[in-house]
Amino acid sequence: MYKLTVVYDMPSDPDSFRAHYRDTHIPLVRALPGVRRINYSFDLESLGEEPAPFCLFEAWFDDAAALGAAMTSPEGERTAADVPNFSDALPLMFHGPATEV
Amino acid sequence: MYKLTVVYDMPSDPDSFRAHYRDTHIPLVRALPGVRRINYSFDLESLGEEPAPFCLFEAWFDDAAALGAAMTSPEGERTAADVPNFSDALPLMFHGPATEV
Repeated sequence: MYKLTVVYDMPSDPDSFRAHYRDTHIPLVRALPGVRRINYSFDLESLGEEPAPFCLFEAWFDDAAALGAAMTSPEGERTAADVPNFSDALPLMFHGPATEV
Repeated sequence: MYKLTVVYDMPSDPDSFRAHYRDTHIPLVRALPGVRRINYSFDLESLGEEPAPFCLFEAWFDDAAALGAAMTSPEGERTAADVPNFSDALPLMFHGPATEV
């Protein structure tokens, strides 16, 4: 399986981020073609000195081609265009094959 | 479900990190009591200017108590004690509830 991870730092308005994310952004993500599994987390606690991210998101696809197709689809463009509606900064986004054991 | 995420930056010796991680560390993690699902990734590609982590790991548990019990078990102590055997730096570790949609 192939995973997209998105990491958001603390925003200036956490409450409105949460509300927009849950009510608007996640429905956009769920509409992506080929997405197999989605999860997201708020309220993360760090086990070290470096702070935890504010929000962590991941979406699973069959392979890199499926992720690429999702990101360049009209649904993917709508999802990307929504990010500035709740996040002041661009999130860290990375992708790669994930080994499940 | 409740998720532990571990993020490793690029080590000084990536090849020996990979070998030790796959052959020794992952078997230790699999022995943790209460772990429901494990996945890890190398070869991540960033979609922005910030580099992707070298290695991303996650383990799923039923709840925060199950994670706590795993980390303080003998198996958890063996797993933590193994980290300096392949990683020069302490990884970023954080945990929290994950919403699956």
